[in-house]
Order: sequence, then structure tokens, then C-alpha cells
Amino acid sequence: MNRADRPIGVFDSGIGGLTVVRALRRSLPEESIVYLGDTARVPYGNKSHETIERYALQAGTILTRHDPKLMVIACNTASAHGLAALQAVAPCPVIGVIEPGAEAAAAVKGPVGVIGTLATIQSGAYEEAIRRRNPGAVIHSLACPLLVAFAEEGWLDDPITDAVCRRYLNQIPFEVQTVVMACTHYPILLPSLARTRPGTDWLDSGEITARTVDHMLQGSLGYRTASARGSLRILLTDAGSRLKDVGERFLAEPLESVDLVEL
Amino acid sequence: MNRADRPIGVFDSGIGGLTVVRALRRSLPEESIVYLGDTARVPYGNKSHETIERYALQAGTILTRHDPKLMVIACNTASAHGLAALQAVAPCPVIGVIEPGAEAAAAVKGPVGVIGTLATIQSGAYEEAIRRRNPGAVIHSLACPLLVAFAEEGWLDDPITDAVCRRYLNQIPFEVQTVVMACTHYPILLPSLARTRPGTDWLDSGEITARTVDHMLQGSLGYRTASARGSLRILLTDAGSRLKDVGERFLAEPLESVDLVEL
Repeated sequence: MNRADRPIGVFDSGIGGLTVVRALRRSLPEESIVYLGDTARVPYGNKSHETIERYALQAGTILTRHDPKLMVIACNTASAHGLAALQAVAPCPVIGVIEPGAEAAAAVKGPVGVIGTLATIQSGAYEEAIRRRNPGAVIHSLACPLLVAFAEEGWLDDPITDAVCRRYLNQIPFEVQTVVMACTHYPILLPSLARTRPGTDWLDSGEITARTVDHMLQGSLGYRTASARGSLRILLTDAGSRLKDVGERFLAEPLESVDLVEL
Repeated sequence: MNRADRPIGVFDSGIGGLTVVRALRRSLPEESIVYLGDTARVPYGNKSHETIERYALQAGTILTRHDPKLMVIACNTASAHGLAALQAVAPCPVIGVIEPGAEAAAAVKGPVGVIGTLATIQSGAYEEAIRRRNPGAVIHSLACPLLVAFAEEGWLDDPITDAVCRRYLNQIPFEVQTVVMACTHYPILLPSLARTRPGTDWLDSGEITARTVDHMLQGSLGYRTASARGSLRILLTDAGSRLKDVGERFLAEPLESVDLVEL
């Protein structure tokens, strides 16, 4: 197969990364994608560095069997703890969602907020990546452990979800006008987040990463040569009963071709 | 070692089962306990039957190395999906938390409510176990997926937690006066549950299971012969950063002697 015709491999701890797939399908509809969601062990957000790194390496092994031209870790927690290890062994380029998100955050004038899971925030990966680009950046990071559960429960446009968002976001100083959604589940909650903190700019690490993928394909990796819409193959380590509903909400298209794999 | 002096093995998907350990330590302080929490893959509540059954069998293998006189699956989800498989292969008796909880629920006059994770409720295990004892029982079962996340976040005595409990519990008809907490995380939320639905009797499947263990030791298994307080050894598959705080809240004593194991 032509090198450029190989699929893009996307890995996430569960199905939150489908928001990144959605962004990729919008901006790069011809590309084929193989998505691996580790739904048997989701969520990663409260787990340790060693465990998350091990899980990321196992996922990389599975995706490598599909001969990807590029792998995307579409999960901030797994990017924070597993990217370096996977890059060291993968046979193709690997990117996470943190560097692209940090790139956008570093360009912001004034203080910036970062919200994510406990493991992402405690890793300090965003602060490190932002300060590497902008040493004087003022960064307010905040772990919001309940937000993933609310995104999966689907209580959207809901006063309880608004109250939870408010409880967390009130801990970020008023003068912060730009907040990075450093978890791929959060874009689903954007209406609640925006109602809670009007006038804020919300940076979606997944959307930004889709733009980075575009730049990489423009370069040496190459776009897929066929003009038909690319295929989307979804591999999961567990198929729970809510998968279809929740997954389609994140992906914004029907979930077809789902296969179970063992890690 | 005298057969009766061997420890009780306790397995949970994470640390919610420490509420069962707490009940065992109160009623049977001389017994030694080895607890295995699968924190690297917690929670099980939204996962499939096949995956949960496989995880329960792996946990049983680890606990068997500690030569238990009895194994307790201190997790409703794992009891619903893994008990039968583990009983078929284990070298000692294995009990779950569902049969004891159902025994108490079947004795209730009038309709009974059952709240738990999605996987526990969808298994139908409580309804089946209650109806086996009381074929005419009227049972209202309800999945409450967010409650585990709230118990772990520790927003106790909190108006948002009350609002979440009210949202769920309002779906159970008014005439239900007894509700089974069919998840070992829920006793932590009892103040919120009770405020939301005053006058309700709350059955704690973990507390009831501790009484069942007492009856089994009274029988052929035997009580530990030493009169000193029994040891408590905790094995976890992942040690996240919040473990100590959250675990001690569930256990209601300091978390000492924690070891990591791989499954």
C-alpha cells in the first residue's frame, strides 16, 4: 500500500477520544482511521503514571498491527503519561493532544486556565509544555474529576451539570479569559461550561490536534490518495451497554464497524 | 496453619469494598483480612459481563495465593457478573454481596427499591435473587451511574450531591419505603440519600454480608483462634494519588500495609 494511504491510528482510554475523531473526520474526510478505545479499563484519570504508561504501550502494539502512518493519543491523561514511552518504540510518528493544546495556550495574551482529569493536571505536562514556549505564562490548572462522569452520563443542558461546572470553575481567577479543555470528554459539556463562565474562550485540545495532523500530512506523511470518504474502524476492549448511545454522542455520526480486542 | 486461622480474602473492583471490610472489622475484629482492589481497572460499573467475569477470575487467582478460608466479592457489580464463575474454580467457599442483600430485601413487607451501577442493575441479579425467595415481591430497580463518582470525589454533605441523589431517587415510586444500597460505594453517601428521601429504610449490602460471614465462621469454617486484633493487608493493582484519602474515608481507619500487585 502507498505509504500515504495507510490509516491514522487513534488511541484513547475510552470513547472521549471520539471527539478528536470527529474533528479529524470533519477536516480530513478522506483519511482512514483506526480507533482503539480501552473501554475495559477506562477511565485513566485517577490512575498512576506507571499504569497509564503500560496501558499506552499495549494500545500502541495493537494499533501498530494496522500499519498506521501516524498515531494520535487522543486522550490528555494518556498523552501526559504515555506519549514519551510510546514514541520511543513506535514504528511511526506519534503525537499527543497536549503539545498542540499547549501551543495554542502559549499564544494567548494574559493568564490561561487548564482543566482536566486529576492525572493530567498532576502530571504538570501542560504547564511544562506551555512554559517551554512562553516562560512567563501565568497558568491556573484545575483538576475536575467529576466532569468525565457527567459527560458519559449525558446530563447535558442540565442545571446539576451547570452547578458542578460552576463549583470547579469558580476556583479559577476571574481575570482568566481563556481556558484549555485538557480532556477530550469536555467538549460535550461546552454548553454548561460556557453558561457557567460567559465570555471565556474555550480551547479544544482535540480540535487543535486535528489541525496539527493536517500539517503533518501536508508534510512528509502525505494525504490519502483516494478521494472517497475514508473508513472508520473502531476497536474497543469492552463493549458496555451504553456504548452506542454515548459513543455516537461523542462522534456525531453512527457507530458502525465496532470490534472487540483484548489487551 | 489451623484452617480457621487463615485469612478472609476480600475482592473489590476498587476501594468501595473497604466499606465491607469496615463492617467485617467491626463485627469480627480478630479475623485477618487480605483485600484486593482492582484500582487499575476500576470502575466495573459500566463494563460488560464477559470483561467483569474475566477480571473476577484473575482476582480470585491472586487471593488464592494467600490461602483464604473464605473469599468475599465485596462489590455488587463483580458479584452479579463474576460470582458463579469464581465459585466454580475457587478452592474455598466464595460469597458475594447480592445474596445476603437479597435475603434482607425479600423479608421486607411491601415494595422494595434497589439502586446500583448500570452493570449491577442490568444483570437483573437482585431481582432474580429476591424473587427466588419471595416470588410476589414488587421491586423497583434503578441504575445511578454518577453516585460512585460522587462517593470518590468526596462531595459529602453537599447540595450538589443531594440534587443528584434526588434526581435519581425521584424515579422510585413514593410508596417504596425500603431501598437496598446495591453498591458498596453508596454507604458513604447515606447522609445525602437519607436527606433526599426521609423516612426510608436503607439496607447496606456490605453490612448484611458481614453478618453472613459471621454465620459461616460460626459453622464449619471456624473463627480465628487468636484473640489479638487480626491483620489487614491491602493489595491494589494501582496506587493513584487520592488512594489514601479516599480509602481511609471508606475504611474508617488508617490505611497501612498497602502493596501493589499485577493482574
